[in-house]
Formats: sequence, structure tokens, C-alpha cells
Amino acid sequence: MAGNSFGELFKITTFGESHGGAVGVVVDGCPPGLEICEGDIQRELDRRKPGQSDITTPRKEEDSIHILSGVFEGFTTGTPIMMLAYNKDTRSEDYNHLNKLFRPSHADFTYLSKYGLRDWRGSGRASARETLGRVAAGAIAQKFLKESIGIEILSYVEQVGDIQSQVDYETVSADQIEKNIIRCPDHEAATKMIELVRAVQSDGDSIGGIIRGVIRNVQPGLGEPVFDKLHADLGKAMLSINAVKGFEIGLGFNAVHLRGSQHNDPFTVNTAGEVVTRTNNAGGVLGGISTGSTITFRVAFKPVATIAKEQDTVTLEGEPTKLAASGRHDPCVLPRAVPIVDAMAALVMADHVLRDKAQNL
Amino acid sequence: MAGNSFGELFKITTFGESHGGAVGVVVDGCPPGLEICEGDIQRELDRRKPGQSDITTPRKEEDSIHILSGVFEGFTTGTPIMMLAYNKDTRSEDYNHLNKLFRPSHADFTYLSKYGLRDWRGSGRASARETLGRVAAGAIAQKFLKESIGIEILSYVEQVGDIQSQVDYETVSADQIEKNIIRCPDHEAATKMIELVRAVQSDGDSIGGIIRGVIRNVQPGLGEPVFDKLHADLGKAMLSINAVKGFEIGLGFNAVHLRGSQHNDPFTVNTAGEVVTRTNNAGGVLGGISTGSTITFRVAFKPVATIAKEQDTVTLEGEPTKLAASGRHDPCVLPRAVPIVDAMAALVMADHVLRDKAQNL
Amino acid sequence: MAGNSFGELFKITTFGESHGGAVGVVVDGCPPGLEICEGDIQRELDRRKPGQSDITTPRKEEDSIHILSGVFEGFTTGTPIMMLAYNKDTRSEDYNHLNKLFRPSHADFTYLSKYGLRDWRGSGRASARETLGRVAAGAIAQKFLKESIGIEILSYVEQVGDIQSQVDYETVSADQIEKNIIRCPDHEAATKMIELVRAVQSDGDSIGGIIRGVIRNVQPGLGEPVFDKLHADLGKAMLSINAVKGFEIGLGFNAVHLRGSQHNDPFTVNTAGEVVTRTNNAGGVLGGISTGSTITFRVAFKPVATIAKEQDTVTLEGEPTKLAASGRHDPCVLPRAVPIVDAMAALVMADHVLRDKAQNL
Amino acid sequence: MAGNSFGELFKITTFGESHGGAVGVVVDGCPPGLEICEGDIQRELDRRKPGQSDITTPRKEEDSIHILSGVFEGFTTGTPIMMLAYNKDTRSEDYNHLNKLFRPSHADFTYLSKYGLRDWRGSGRASARETLGRVAAGAIAQKFLKESIGIEILSYVEQVGDIQSQVDYETVSADQIEKNIIRCPDHEAATKMIELVRAVQSDGDSIGGIIRGVIRNVQPGLGEPVFDKLHADLGKAMLSINAVKGFEIGLGFNAVHLRGSQHNDPFTVNTAGEVVTRTNNAGGVLGGISTGSTITFRVAFKPVATIAKEQDTVTLEGEPTKLAASGRHDPCVLPRAVPIVDAMAALVMADHVLRDKAQNL
Repeated sequence: MAGNSFGELFKITTFGESHGGAVGVVVDGCPPGLEICEGDIQRELDRRKPGQSDITTPRKEEDSIHILSGVFEGFTTGTPIMMLAYNKDTRSEDYNHLNKLFRPSHADFTYLSKYGLRDWRGSGRASARETLGRVAAGAIAQKFLKESIGIEILSYVEQVGDIQSQVDYETVSADQIEKNIIRCPDHEAATKMIELVRAVQSDGDSIGGIIRGVIRNVQPGLGEPVFDKLHADLGKAMLSINAVKGFEIGLGFNAVHLRGSQHNDPFTVNTAGEVVTRTNNAGGVLGGISTGSTITFRVAFKPVATIAKEQDTVTLEGEPTKLAASGRHDPCVLPRAVPIVDAMAALVMADHVLRDKAQNL
Repeated sequence: MAGNSFGELFKITTFGESHGGAVGVVVDGCPPGLEICEGDIQRELDRRKPGQSDITTPRKEEDSIHILSGVFEGFTTGTPIMMLAYNKDTRSEDYNHLNKLFRPSHADFTYLSKYGLRDWRGSGRASARETLGRVAAGAIAQKFLKESIGIEILSYVEQVGDIQSQVDYETVSADQIEKNIIRCPDHEAATKMIELVRAVQSDGDSIGGIIRGVIRNVQPGLGEPVFDKLHADLGKAMLSINAVKGFEIGLGFNAVHLRGSQHNDPFTVNTAGEVVTRTNNAGGVLGGISTGSTITFRVAFKPVATIAKEQDTVTLEGEPTKLAASGRHDPCVLPRAVPIVDAMAALVMADHVLRDKAQNL
Repeated sequence: MAGNSFGELFKITTFGESHGGAVGVVVDGCPPGLEICEGDIQRELDRRKPGQSDITTPRKEEDSIHILSGVFEGFTTGTPIMMLAYNKDTRSEDYNHLNKLFRPSHADFTYLSKYGLRDWRGSGRASARETLGRVAAGAIAQKFLKESIGIEILSYVEQVGDIQSQVDYETVSADQIEKNIIRCPDHEAATKMIELVRAVQSDGDSIGGIIRGVIRNVQPGLGEPVFDKLHADLGKAMLSINAVKGFEIGLGFNAVHLRGSQHNDPFTVNTAGEVVTRTNNAGGVLGGISTGSTITFRVAFKPVATIAKEQDTVTLEGEPTKLAASGRHDPCVLPRAVPIVDAMAALVMADHVLRDKAQNL
Repeated sequence: MAGNSFGELFKITTFGESHGGAVGVVVDGCPPGLEICEGDIQRELDRRKPGQSDITTPRKEEDSIHILSGVFEGFTTGTPIMMLAYNKDTRSEDYNHLNKLFRPSHADFTYLSKYGLRDWRGSGRASARETLGRVAAGAIAQKFLKESIGIEILSYVEQVGDIQSQVDYETVSADQIEKNIIRCPDHEAATKMIELVRAVQSDGDSIGGIIRGVIRNVQPGLGEPVFDKLHADLGKAMLSINAVKGFEIGLGFNAVHLRGSQHNDPFTVNTAGEVVTRTNNAGGVLGGISTGSTITFRVAFKPVATIAKEQDTVTLEGEPTKLAASGRHDPCVLPRAVPIVDAMAALVMADHVLRDKAQNL
């Protein structure tokens, strides 16, 4: 109820502050008998870790994952899987001066308003470091989906600032996404994006962008009607990621420019004799339930709030002051957010697979 | 778990199909002692009912609300409030031919895929008629928020097709919204929107648009960090409404074009000595928690799926066939969706008010 | 959260006060394709209705059930099933004098303490009439369990006051239970019980007793370890029934007199080659999970609080006063509680069947 | 949904197996600003740890608690509190022979039936070691209840085998309970109980008993009517503890012997002018809501399943075999279960305090 859990049947609870003892996650409800090891988790964590390229924060966090329960002789047992990474590179003194003021567009003010006190070291619980638990849990969800159901999940950077890319989401591969440090499989656009991020960085500023999420090989019938529509749960999952300001499924906001006769996806029958839609403007869901087409959505990220440029703000007592970050921060969160989008999408899908099984199998 | 409930503490469960016995809602967790009568509910329902103007479906549904529990001598008792409207104008024969085919961009195919059978009369559970329960519950939530906390909720049509409006969300009033049948308080734009909807209607087609939601007089500190961020719950709430394809908070997708130095909202102190933000690009939330600024978001609606124009589809057996709706349908769902957006926003806020009280009072 | 829902996947929410518009239930999560009609429900409701014999209250409540959603052409659709009975024989004037005082061992005082106001007509929400919704929902759960899984549920009166019965729970049939008005299949004991209830009744008093619940043909593996142990959920279910003061599984409180060597159930193999226990002191669960043996438990009911004998109490203002019920009340709640125990047991089992399917199928 | 969480608003999730990396708990929803340190937790853990006396298992587990999140500068922050104890004295080889057979009255068979595989080292997840997380979380709940609301929780051993004690639950103190190793404040009875346990132990056998739980200084109005009655949630909490077979509130099973006129608790007014009951047969709850009287309940524990005496059982393949435990086990679980009963009672009460605040403050 305090908002640290996600999912109903494939359920995760994350814990940990940026500079506390550890960050991590408890995964409850994972089916038993799934082969899993720390390497499976580490691979995904390495995609979100700081310091992986010159356009991410130079902070060094090893983020070594430890599985402390729920896995026995290499297989999930059906009991809670607790995983954590100890906090090591916690130079809390870097944040000492932040104790006394509210950083613009950070959660300092709102946490203090809510709780009456806050752990101000490295944003505390509001730190993006919290997402480590999500990615760890998502790695298990992705493995479950791939091996048990055949569902494949991937996402990539589609836009940074005004630089757009052209990618076919039906055919793009995970390898193509990993080929450059911005994680955009359109390599021409990627080059421009990287240039832009470097320019913004040297400016002491930051920049946002859009990540496209893709879920392939989904059987029809996943998602719950009414409130827990599949895209509503995907939307919530994405909007819960730090810095996300928008979500759209299928054509999304662009659908408002079309007539019904243009937007509707006619049904037809494919060569395998299955009912399918001829187009996929809906983005793979109708009435909140998967159609069997590829699910595709877009997630808008604001520019990172922490910038080197000097900004106006106030102290805890309301005195005007100036702030210029000297810390170790990302000029653009998107490349490191890609595995987080993957993870959250996988958690939603795994949950809905179990929910569908419960009622309909 | 089957997706028919919304909210954690101020919790609703809706029930009912378009052509079953009744549609309605159970509201559980409403604080006791709130003065409420059927008239309070009916007023909101009348804003969503069919046949209210020449640009909505001519279906006549009286939608008379009955409160059958939870209210005693005019006050809520703290026990479940069950409200329903009996289904009356259910000309199921209008739908007989739909029993045998899948309507494009409707949920016929996905419901059948999921459940193996479906109530095909008037879209069954997937009918927008389900939202009647939401609006009834939302009316109670709005009254609770207004009277107990001072929070005010309203929304309006901001765009239809390509026609945009200019409205100041900080000052617009409920009366201004109700002044025309499209519910857009920019009356010049409203006139064009109405013309467009009539043109689309005479074309046998449909059109989408954007509704802006506004939540004013919100105290700082509402919303749960991490997964149940206030805007994540608002996003899920909106995405769960039929025909919604996108949600954004604050600048949303437009934030990607800005630098951090442009997007960040500097803190300052207002004349009352309170810490506030100078701008409100964030849309009233930071770290998923309300800042005290007006919360504002936008919701994208696709064009209505049911159109009079002939469309390709297939029968249940997969045979190609043609479909042209002869029924009674809306060319543009937006004017009737405004009270639904209000209701869902109120339900999210009421829930978060109770959640915050539980842990932090 | 306000306590009116039960179950996680096979979930019910009851609503309604004794003298409001209606009492009823929403069942969410029921698998689709289950054949169900109002007669299936009515049969169980008739077992709990008042006035069914001379040892129950002479109140006449028809309790006609109406299914208003979730069933189409005789089959469940997977959407919420809303069922209600309108309140008819509501002679609220019988309760007018109760407006001003606290009935001993009733919930008048605690409801008022909690909510600050209360619906005092016929105990309001605290009335046993609320259980109508449970029995209606339980009838569906029983049908699902019997037809889909083969699980059979029944319960009977094992003790009234000091009169105990001897019944073999492994072989007793539903017909045997229904053969007398006290619902005790040991007919010698039943005769004595009925005599006792009549004596107590003519004394203006009331009497309690014990109901035994039996769940047969359960596959091993149902129940969730740790907090949602099968018998913990059964215990909560039973303790949530009005007038219940105790619950035990297997030997229960009698287990404390035994040594481990006496209480342990040795494993063996039956003629079908299945691992089974030689005895069933555990009552069909080990570690909170079903063993495959018959699940058996006992539920203690206190004597009915409403009695004709004069009692001391106080008014709302704390003035001493006397109370002697003149209304229409049961001298012993047990015969009418049998179908409620059945219903709650069925709801727990149906929920755990779905929960097990979700994670383990 | 997989049963590893407890509570709705003051919510815990435990994790860990007997011989995995660690056992622990995440506490979510704890109010911020509560002063807490590892010593507060350790004190309670030391009451449940093995090896604390000659009538408990000689296993040495240090059970040092580590708080890894949610506490900053000695105060809770409102974010998840994760606590764990690393598993150290895990002589898994002691259990090697158990890999191949089903121990009578243990969960070996049911876990394997449910999940298809199991962590057989030291009972895995079914080990009572799981309760470490409950006790750690309960220590925080107890502190919150005591300091914020004044509610006091304690429990003691009331019966071992046939040896009963006489204690006044209204006045007994925590110190009196801790004065002997069996945790029974009637010292005469305690001496006999300890003798009995030693006799049973030297017999290679085990023995059960009854713990009484006491909750004092409770304001009227806690508990949710209908399903989440305060005593129903207490019942579930207790029944979820390993080896518990029965629960009763107030007079419990003894209530069945009384008439209504004997069992009803008349209302009166105390010297402070408050409405109170003259007797407390109900055990402090009416209609599932606290009356303001002391809440008192009893919990029945079966004899420990692990005994040195030789027992019949079967191998995984169903072959008959013999088993005699050589390990390090408790002859009587009750003294170490007292802090677990305290913890579970505190968790239920803390949850209901927050639930009541949410709706009714």
C-alpha cells in the first residue's frame, strides 16, 4: 500500500536507498522449476549500471547481484527470491550540501512534505538506483516468458531530443540494439544522438527522449478487461520509472488525427488459418487484451533533473540560493533506461500470464 | 485480480454488461459521515449519458441511479455503497448479426480468445456502459475531496482531430466547460470541433481527440513513491478507459525536446511563505508525489471503432465478410468521456488521500 | 481494505445492510464456462433462510436471488457476477427502541465507536443477513469445485451446548445432514439437540455449539506456505462469520494432550500406489498445504446475543437501562450457519485452486 | 498471492530458507519518524533463538539482525525496511538423509506435491526459521503501537500437555513472563511444565501446549467489519505459525457450554464515564471491532513433529522405511513461540490501526 510492490501474482517488492546498506528486491510468485543463476541477472544489471560508456555517469557501481533465497541447485523453488546488491561507492559527502536545499525537479521537497524527514544522501529512496531491483526481477520474468511461453521483450531508444530514428519493431534484434552506446538500432540516428548527448553534456545540461518497447510472440487473450487492461498496466509500469512523463500504446497521441476508418485494424486470416489484424494501429491490444499482434508502446523521458548549470532554488528555510551540480550524473538517462523498460514490460507480462492461467486454463 | 476493481483504500468494483440486468459499482472504504444522495450521483451520470446532444449517440438510456446500501439517513456509513442502474433500452436484436463476426478494433475477438465464450450483446462487458459505475463512484470521490480536503477536479476537451484549443487550466471553471456540447471551454475552438464532428458523422466515420485533466488545490505529499507514483496511478486510471491510447503528465511527450535547464521548475517561496515551483512543467508531481502545484495531464482518445462506413472483417469461422454499423453510436467519444476522466481522477486522488493518511497522519 | 472483500483470485465483495435496499455480492474471478442458474443459488440460500423450522427465527424473508451480471445464456462469462436479494420484510419499527441503547454482545457500540454513526435498523451491516451474499457466492464456488476439480464440501452440527454427536466425517452424506432440522447427521444426538434448543427457547435464552467442516477429494498441493496456509485461510473465513469464537484444524486443541509420537501421521502407500498418511490427526494439511487426506475442522459458535430475557445495558448517553428482546430471533444459530460454513469453505478452496493453478500449472 | 506477505497497510514480506543465504523481511508502510535500532530488534530475536535454555534445541544460531534499508539516522523514513540475518550454522549434511524420504507431519511431502521440487535442507522454506523475519518486523510494530498509540502486547505459555496454569491476563507483566525458561508466569505450573518437557525430551518425544495472547490499552473501534474482523485476522495470523492447530478468542470453544444470558457481557459505565462491558467473555471484540476491553485469545500448538523416537514413513519412491531424528530439535516449541505470537499480534494490530486511520480519522 506504501507503493513499493508491483504485480499481483508475479509480484515484486523493492527496497533500499542510494546510500543505505543495499538495494534489492523480493520476487514472490515466480513459478518453480525455472533455471536461474546470478549470471542471468548480472547480464541485465550490467546494461543499466553507471559508467558503462562516456555518455553515462562515471560513477562506478559494481552492482554485483546476490541471490539469497528462493533458488536451490540452480532452479527456482516457488518461494520468494530475494536478491540484493550492496551499496559500495557511496560517497555520501558529495551530497552533504544537498541536505539543506531542494534540488529543482527532484523529489527532495515532496519526500520531506510527505514524510516529515528524508534520507538526503544521493536522493535516498527516490534515487534511480532503486531500479536495480526491478531489473534483477525483470531478468527472471524475461527468462520465464521466453522459456515457458515464448514471449520476447526488447526496447530501444527511438528519439533523443529532436533526433528521430527509423526502426522496424517487428524485426529488430537485441544484438542490433546493443551495437552502440545509445542503444538505438538505427545507427545513423544513433551517431547523431550520441553527438547530441555529448554536446549537451559539455554544456552542463541534459536531454530527454523516447524509448519504444516491443513485446513479440504474445498469444491472444492476455490482459484483464476493465481496470487492469494490459496497456493500462504497461502504462503504469512505465510511468513509475523515474523521469518518465508520458506513455502511449500503438499510435497513441497520433491516433487523434485519424478517422475511425483509417485507424481501425481490419481482421483477416493468416496463412496459418489464424484470425489476425491486417494492420496494428492498436499496438497489439483490443479492449485491454492482447490480440496476438506485436505489442508496441512508447515512453517519454524528461531531461535529467541534475545538471551542472547553475539553477535557482531555495533552502529548507525558504531562503533563495543557487545550485550547480558537481556530482557524477547522466546527461541523458535513455541508454541506461532501456533495460529498465525491458524489465517493467516483462514484469507486467509475467503477471498477466499467471493471472490468465489462474482464471482461464 | 480479474481486473474489475480499482483503488486500494477508496476501492471500487464495477459489474455489469451492456445488456444484462444492470450495471453498477460497489464503493468500499469511503469515509463515514459524508452527505450523499442519489441526486449528487445523477448529476454526473447525466453528463455521460447517451442522447444528450446531436453529436452523441441517439440511444436513450435513462441511467437512473439507485443507491442500495451504505448510505443511511443521507450520510455514508463507512460500509460498502452499492449503486446500480438497471438496463432498459436493450434492443439486443440490434446486435444479433454481431454474434457471428469480429468487429474491427472492438474487443469481440480478444474476449472470445480469452474466455472461450462472450456476451456479444452490445459489446457485453467491454461496452463503455461499464463506465457508468465509475462515474457514480467518482461523484462520491469528488464530493469527499471537495468537502473534506478542498481538492477540485475538472477536465475538458482540448483537441478534436487537428483542432486545438487554448485554455488556461489554472483558471477554467466547470461552468465554462459545460457551456457547449463538446465540453471545450475555448468557444471558438469548440465551434470548429462541433462542425468537425458533424462532418465526420455525416461521413459515417468517427474522430478522436485529447482531454486535459486538472486537479487543483492539492496539498504537497500525496502519492506513493516508487511504483504507485501519483501520475502512474493517474496514467493507469486513464488508460483503463475505453478508447484511450495515451497519457502524459505535465509537458509529457513535449518534454523530450527540452534541455534540463529549460524543463526544470525552480523552487521559490510564494507570498504565503510556502515553498512552490516557479513554473509547472512537471505537472504537479515530483518523484511521484504532489508538489502542491496544479496537477495537469492529457489523455489521448482514438476515433470510435464503430462506424457506419463499410469495413472488412472475418466471421468467427474466419470467412471474409463486410460490416457497416447501423446502430446508434457516437461519432466522437470525447464530450461524454469528460465526466469519466473526472471520475477516474477523483478515484485516484481519494485513494491517495486515504493512503497518505494511513501512514503519515 | 475496509474488510468487505474475501479471496484473492476467486474474490467476493459483499454489500448491504439488514434494512437497506438489498444485500448481495459481487463475485470476481470465477472461471468462465461454468453452468449456473438462479436455482443453483436459491437452493443454498433456502438452507440459511429464516423461518425454515420451529427452531429458527419466524422472520419471513423470501431471499429471492437475482443474478444481474456475469452469466450469459446459462454460463459464467468470466466477468463479475453480481447477485442480490432485495430487502422486503424490513419492519424497521421493531428496532426503533434500539436506536437509543447498546445491545449486549452486539456490535452497536463498536460500530458507533468506529464510524461515529450507524445504521441501527436490524443491526445494519453487522446483521447476519450479510451472509446471504457469502452463501450465494459459495454456491458458485461449490459448483466450480465439484464439477471442475471433484472437491466436495459439507458441514454439520456436531455439538449443541453439551450434547455431542458421533459422526464419521469421511462417509457422511449431504442427505444425512439435511434429514433433520438441526442438521446433525447423528439422529439420536439430533433429537436431544432439538429438545435442548426448544427448552432454551422457551426459557427466553439462547445456546451455542460446534459445526464440523469437511472437505473431501482434495488433491495434494493446495494452500500457500507461510502466511496463506490453507488452514489459516479457512480459520479466517470461519472466524469472520458472526458469532464464531474458535476454530481448529485436525485435532486442534486436543492435540496439546498428545506426544509427537502419538500425534504424527505416518506416511504409507495406498493400494493405488499413492503416498498417503495412515492417520489424519493433522486434518488434511501439512505446512499449510493439503496432503490429499480429507480436510476437517471445527468451528465454535457462541450463544446468540439476542435473548428475550431481561439484560442490563446502557443508553447512548451511558444511562443504565434494561433490555428484553421482543423481536424475531434464533435461539441457536447453528442449523442456519451450516450452509454459511459450507460457503466460506468453498470460497477458500476455490481461491486456492486458482492460486495454485497460477503458479504451478 | 504466493502467500509470503502479511498485512495490508503495515505489510511484511518474509523471505529465506533454513539453509539458504539469509532469512529476513521487508516491512512496507511503517509510519516515518519512529526511532528504531538493531538493538530493538535483536532483543525480540533473542527470545526466539535456539539454544537459549536446556529445553530448547542446542542449535547455535546467532541470528544477528541487519537493517539494510528504511532507517536513517535512527528513524524510520517511511520507505521499506529490509532486515535480514545471514544463515551460518547450516550443517546441511545433517539433513542429507532426509532428501530421500518424507518426514511424518512435516511439509516435505506437501511442498514436493505442490512445487515438483523442494529445498530439503533443514525443511527449507517450511522451517520455523522463517519466523525470524516475523519477529523482527513485529518488534517494530510493537514499538509503533506502544509509543504512538499506547497499545501493549504480551503472551505467555498457559498450558503444556495437561499442565494448566492460573494467570490474570489483565495484570501479568512482561517481566513475570521472562522469569522462567518456559515463559509461564505461574511459577508453580512453570516448574511442572519444565519437568514435563524434560521428561518428554529424555523419552525422545515432544509435547504441545497453549499460548495465551493479550493486547491491552486498545481503543474501541479497531478492526474491519465483515471479513477482516479483528479476531479473524488475529486467528489467521496465529494459524499461520508453524505447529498451530487452533485459535479461540474470549471464551472460545468454552462459549458453547453457556446460555446467551451467561455469555453476554452487559454494558455499564466506568468511573471515567466511558461505556465498557462488565465482563469480557467476548475477549475484547464485538462484531469484529475492538470494544476497548483487553483482547485475549488462545493458540493451540501441536507437539513438535521431529522426534528421536523411531517412526514409520516412506521414501520418495514410496518404499517403507524407518526414521529417527538425530538432529538438534526442540521437545516443546512453546517457549520460543511466545515472541512469535507477540510479533504476529503486533503486526495485526499495527495494520488495523493504520486501516482505521485511513478511513476514519
